[in-house]
Amino acid sequence: MYANECQDSPKVERNARVIDMRSDTFSLPTEKMRHAMAEAVVGDDVFQEDPTVNALQKRAAELFGKESALLVSSGTMGNLISVLVHCRERGSEAIVGDKCHIFKYEQGGISQFGGVHVKAIPTLADGTFLLEDIVTSIRTDDIHFPRTKVLCLENTHNGCGGKVLPLAYLDKVTAFARANGIPAIHMDGARIFNAAIALKVPVSRLVQNVDSVTFCLSKGLCAPVGSVIVGTTSFVAEARRVRKALGGGMRQAGHLAAAGLVALEEMVDRLEEDHRRAHHFARSIAALQSPFFTADVTATHSNMVRIEFPTDHVTAEVFCKRVGSVTDAEERDLGQTFVVVRLFPVGKNAARAVICNNLTDADVQMAISKISYYADELKN
Amino acid sequence: MYANECQDSPKVERNARVIDMRSDTFSLPTEKMRHAMAEAVVGDDVFQEDPTVNALQKRAAELFGKESALLVSSGTMGNLISVLVHCRERGSEAIVGDKCHIFKYEQGGISQFGGVHVKAIPTLADGTFLLEDIVTSIRTDDIHFPRTKVLCLENTHNGCGGKVLPLAYLDKVTAFARANGIPAIHMDGARIFNAAIALKVPVSRLVQNVDSVTFCLSKGLCAPVGSVIVGTTSFVAEARRVRKALGGGMRQAGHLAAAGLVALEEMVDRLEEDHRRAHHFARSIAALQSPFFTADVTATHSNMVRIEFPTDHVTAEVFCKRVGSVTDAEERDLGQTFVVVRLFPVGKNAARAVICNNLTDADVQMAISKISYYADELKN
Amino acid sequence: MYANECQDSPKVERNARVIDMRSDTFSLPTEKMRHAMAEAVVGDDVFQEDPTVNALQKRAAELFGKESALLVSSGTMGNLISVLVHCRERGSEAIVGDKCHIFKYEQGGISQFGGVHVKAIPTLADGTFLLEDIVTSIRTDDIHFPRTKVLCLENTHNGCGGKVLPLAYLDKVTAFARANGIPAIHMDGARIFNAAIALKVPVSRLVQNVDSVTFCLSKGLCAPVGSVIVGTTSFVAEARRVRKALGGGMRQAGHLAAAGLVALEEMVDRLEEDHRRAHHFARSIAALQSPFFTADVTATHSNMVRIEFPTDHVTAEVFCKRVGSVTDAEERDLGQTFVVVRLFPVGKNAARAVICNNLTDADVQMAISKISYYADELKN
Amino acid sequence: MYANECQDSPKVERNARVIDMRSDTFSLPTEKMRHAMAEAVVGDDVFQEDPTVNALQKRAAELFGKESALLVSSGTMGNLISVLVHCRERGSEAIVGDKCHIFKYEQGGISQFGGVHVKAIPTLADGTFLLEDIVTSIRTDDIHFPRTKVLCLENTHNGCGGKVLPLAYLDKVTAFARANGIPAIHMDGARIFNAAIALKVPVSRLVQNVDSVTFCLSKGLCAPVGSVIVGTTSFVAEARRVRKALGGGMRQAGHLAAAGLVALEEMVDRLEEDHRRAHHFARSIAALQSPFFTADVTATHSNMVRIEFPTDHVTAEVFCKRVGSVTDAEERDLGQTFVVVRLFPVGKNAARAVICNNLTDADVQMAISKISYYADELKN
Repeated sequence: MYANECQDSPKVERNARVIDMRSDTFSLPTEKMRHAMAEAVVGDDVFQEDPTVNALQKRAAELFGKESALLVSSGTMGNLISVLVHCRERGSEAIVGDKCHIFKYEQGGISQFGGVHVKAIPTLADGTFLLEDIVTSIRTDDIHFPRTKVLCLENTHNGCGGKVLPLAYLDKVTAFARANGIPAIHMDGARIFNAAIALKVPVSRLVQNVDSVTFCLSKGLCAPVGSVIVGTTSFVAEARRVRKALGGGMRQAGHLAAAGLVALEEMVDRLEEDHRRAHHFARSIAALQSPFFTADVTATHSNMVRIEFPTDHVTAEVFCKRVGSVTDAEERDLGQTFVVVRLFPVGKNAARAVICNNLTDADVQMAISKISYYADELKN
Repeated sequence: MYANECQDSPKVERNARVIDMRSDTFSLPTEKMRHAMAEAVVGDDVFQEDPTVNALQKRAAELFGKESALLVSSGTMGNLISVLVHCRERGSEAIVGDKCHIFKYEQGGISQFGGVHVKAIPTLADGTFLLEDIVTSIRTDDIHFPRTKVLCLENTHNGCGGKVLPLAYLDKVTAFARANGIPAIHMDGARIFNAAIALKVPVSRLVQNVDSVTFCLSKGLCAPVGSVIVGTTSFVAEARRVRKALGGGMRQAGHLAAAGLVALEEMVDRLEEDHRRAHHFARSIAALQSPFFTADVTATHSNMVRIEFPTDHVTAEVFCKRVGSVTDAEERDLGQTFVVVRLFPVGKNAARAVICNNLTDADVQMAISKISYYADELKN
Repeated sequence: MYANECQDSPKVERNARVIDMRSDTFSLPTEKMRHAMAEAVVGDDVFQEDPTVNALQKRAAELFGKESALLVSSGTMGNLISVLVHCRERGSEAIVGDKCHIFKYEQGGISQFGGVHVKAIPTLADGTFLLEDIVTSIRTDDIHFPRTKVLCLENTHNGCGGKVLPLAYLDKVTAFARANGIPAIHMDGARIFNAAIALKVPVSRLVQNVDSVTFCLSKGLCAPVGSVIVGTTSFVAEARRVRKALGGGMRQAGHLAAAGLVALEEMVDRLEEDHRRAHHFARSIAALQSPFFTADVTATHSNMVRIEFPTDHVTAEVFCKRVGSVTDAEERDLGQTFVVVRLFPVGKNAARAVICNNLTDADVQMAISKISYYADELKN
Repeated sequence: MYANECQDSPKVERNARVIDMRSDTFSLPTEKMRHAMAEAVVGDDVFQEDPTVNALQKRAAELFGKESALLVSSGTMGNLISVLVHCRERGSEAIVGDKCHIFKYEQGGISQFGGVHVKAIPTLADGTFLLEDIVTSIRTDDIHFPRTKVLCLENTHNGCGGKVLPLAYLDKVTAFARANGIPAIHMDGARIFNAAIALKVPVSRLVQNVDSVTFCLSKGLCAPVGSVIVGTTSFVAEARRVRKALGGGMRQAGHLAAAGLVALEEMVDRLEEDHRRAHHFARSIAALQSPFFTADVTATHSNMVRIEFPTDHVTAEVFCKRVGSVTDAEERDLGQTFVVVRLFPVGKNAARAVICNNLTDADVQMAISKISYYADELKN
């Protein structure tokens, strides 16, 4: 679809109440954020004269236990910049997971713009790697090989359904990578606060052994725009150069940073609610005991629920289409109380439901009712 | 300087009133913009569901008389994306001016990330090119040569002191480029509304013969963050891909777009005031008839004034340092009414003063007084 | 090791006869090739005025049933150029096997120089892919994804020990790739004549469904330097441009082409001898029935033999070191008739023996005797 | 033109004797070179086991007074590799002359494959730069700028008609570059032996202050294929990696190196003859005192002669076409003794004649006669 078609939100049938579970990227800023944006004291951040940006970066560095931080437009930009800094020499290779966001959903940017060669290794269902797969991927010093420069981790793991990497694994994999001479470890922590909340540890604990982290102020934390890179002072200085070259330097970015500060202050603990709602949703869907779909309750680590479709009778696409619309029968049965539920299919036999601050307990309950109605419909 | 040093604004001596003429990139958003940011209806723009972004893009396309538009983080990103789209094939070459922003101030991004080879041609003092220099730069079809893919213009021309490209030249150079087979013309129109106001023509008139334009909502128009690319529907679709890959896709970007809509609605005509103040400033500095510095009045086309230092006795650096500080004598003479004026040197023998909405007539007058005081000081 | 250390061949202990089975890249040119090199009629090939190069390219195109051909310095350059031509647009992705030469042994050149993102899929033991792995790797039209531009095959498959891709598979995989919309198929046919000889079909049969092929005049065919790209006329025209830009254009390359013409004329059928010797070698090693090593006879499709080390008592490294040297006992036992055998380990538990025209039946027999002597030694 | 059209040498009219002055890249190998190629002891140079390649590299390093050397396919590859090694970090900039081979005739390879941004500075008529232009091109440490990594010189200067850089200039420009902090200096010495012969100094004297040099074994030295990079041991080690990645690693390259050794041994002093013939040719053309063309005698520093066309009545193209063909009148006048002279136009008002070992005194005399005939023709 082209830019100017101006699609805005998808059209809603019959004035149904929309329960949007497609992604936490749809999270809307809070009133306090809107207020903070309006009131922000700002300056030209390209000259590092925006006090609100500086305050946000200072706060982020503190929270992550690192020296320095840099505000960027998106998680994709944070990952791109971080990998490019670690791989600043031509002929570098990055070891990444074959289901990670960097490899699958960032248009191959690290190769496209940075010439980085990618060695993708298998990602286990829980978002982890076999150490064996890492060690066999490390390139020796040989004229036939690129040079291994960075290992990328992702936590929580989006492609694995919001899995939280176990602390013991984090400690083990990072120690192993260092022991085997990998020069740097980058953490795609787009949703790392979800991991910290799930594990009940400070976020700094999760990144103590990595060199750089990208995390998002948007998504679960609800800021409208912005991610942050954290790392050493020299790393961030170089990252700032790359950000400028990419055109990611923003002038009075303090307006965004102001919302980001609210996000860090007020929205982190709240993630626990999203997790609680996700668990409730998963358990409720599983409890429907439909032969056509179920939810993986034990795999629901954070704010994402994986709905599975064991038969080809009801595929993810069919399911999403049906719960995303309203039938005449439904209107007859329910009067004006009907809802539509928006979900994204993940391949043919799974769909993803994501909870964020846009959804209340009542919303989740309405979504469950809708899906329950459909489960009954399928019985006939 | 590193990110976390948190410098904010430069320290101000003796509580002086600061008249900041360094750049219009320091322009602050208006109250109406702050209000619009707070009230914006937003959505996830990566899915093109942010109605305010869509409205801004629609408005921009209309104003420029093009099919489509795309919001980006900065002018640098707008130029980078535009050139990369025109040069999407490996082995492309861009013809640019040797004083243009793309060539001088964007870290060589089009080469660094896009592998584009750069053919820089001389920029005349008025920001124009000799047609002869263009034609001799066009590569023929030969295995030794890259392929000429785009010619870049800049209007107003920052590196030439805010020069407005004459309409007749614009028509001539674009027709000439097409007649000689250059596939595309890109306009870096970071300050193109300044040009339109100076020439008293609609901005669409200035870009009717180019394929793509980048313009800034920040700078003279005062929005906090954001530039816009305009072009054909297919060009913008491809630009959207590149923006995503660069990490320039922003989620609830409607907050920024809301300020941008105010900028387009309310801040364009106001640029005339900046121009008027710049002329007044230039004339006043010239009228001081200092043997050590003067301002080029006839070269003051828009909101920038070039101050020149004909001797090595007072260099640009010495001048900027002196007017940026307060002496004991000055404090004694003027009591609490003293000011500091901030300017950037441009090489050894010139400095640049830029007017934007941050400065009132009174501010400009204070800056003139300050400089006049210094001119007197130099007489002794 | 650095360039000027001038190592030449590894030092040989005790004047042993060296049987070098490390690689067919060590193949030496024949007398006829040397003569042809000396006598070649040459011209400046950058201007396409070298008649011998032109003749070689014409002959190669005919043999492969394609429109055009281009001489290049190496198989690596042939692959690099071919992939870059198929992926000439920024944001391209190549699907390659995870054991192929392009992915493992070419320093990531297609990413490093061309920005191509790499999707590596599992290579089965016989050098083939699961069609399922191909189809799930094809990117849909989505802003998050690069664009799938080429699928790369390799035949014979070096990393799989010289495996010959079955004809039925070749037909199936190429039809499948096209049916699923992959724009181009490239064949790394460095040793494709080995495949043709093994299958007793003309080489044109093996490449009839691919868009481009790289094959080597060196390796089994014994020319000193050179590989050839074949494809359509327009593909080769573009490849010629890329070759020039890489610095691969050679002036009086006819000297190399002359040897290449001899290679095509006289050395192809001869590959059958290498295969026969490889089979004999594999069977003989297996027949030793050593508990410490064996050879995989059925996996010996062409001129490579995989020696396997089932225990950690004798690793590939230990084996290669021992057969590459001479012991005092050996000297005592064998007088002046001892030999050393050179092999490359492939990981910890395998080594590779490669047969080429440098080795006669007698040489192979001597190698077998040497290894037999070591097998006996291990019994004690 | 496409590869398979097999054009070989341009068709020759009426069996004329062809005097080819287009370029010294057409130089043919000597009998001794052909013999050396046939007899060369070779090995696999990718494993650095080719003794002849090693010997050539050792000899080249000695001659240039550098630690190490590397054989490559072409001057273009030598320049590309050298610049990429100096600019191995993303975000590098190279300062080059606007008439140099790297900038004009290498398809922008350093940008295309290496992302290097190019700052081209004016080349004076004698192939030198103003020091002022160098110093103003050096980038300061600023987030808006790439990083200046290398300055490239060219000697003799092809685009300036074979100009020899004066020794005093070489010493001055290199000292200046270092004093101003440019990290590396590369010399495109494709024809540096012509410069050494012209100046009557050893080639090592010309490169004593540069970090890397590329020189050609082909061109004036007549080897069929090959150029050599010289520099420090660590520079060459890195260059070897880049060469491999580009596909420039050649197996039994000793055949080419053997010719290269002959070139270094026997063909260097001989260049003096080419220079003598070029001077004679230039003087003879000038002596014709044609109003339509002349030769620049004082600008004839080495083996190139610039023929200039002061009027538009006889352009370079007209001239080259006429002397490259035979008229009926000419055939009538001269019987069977007519010749054609091949030259390349350089723009509209100049053409280039290049002398190499293909041409004897008699050939040059015949070319002069032909042109004299045409001069007479133009008088009528």
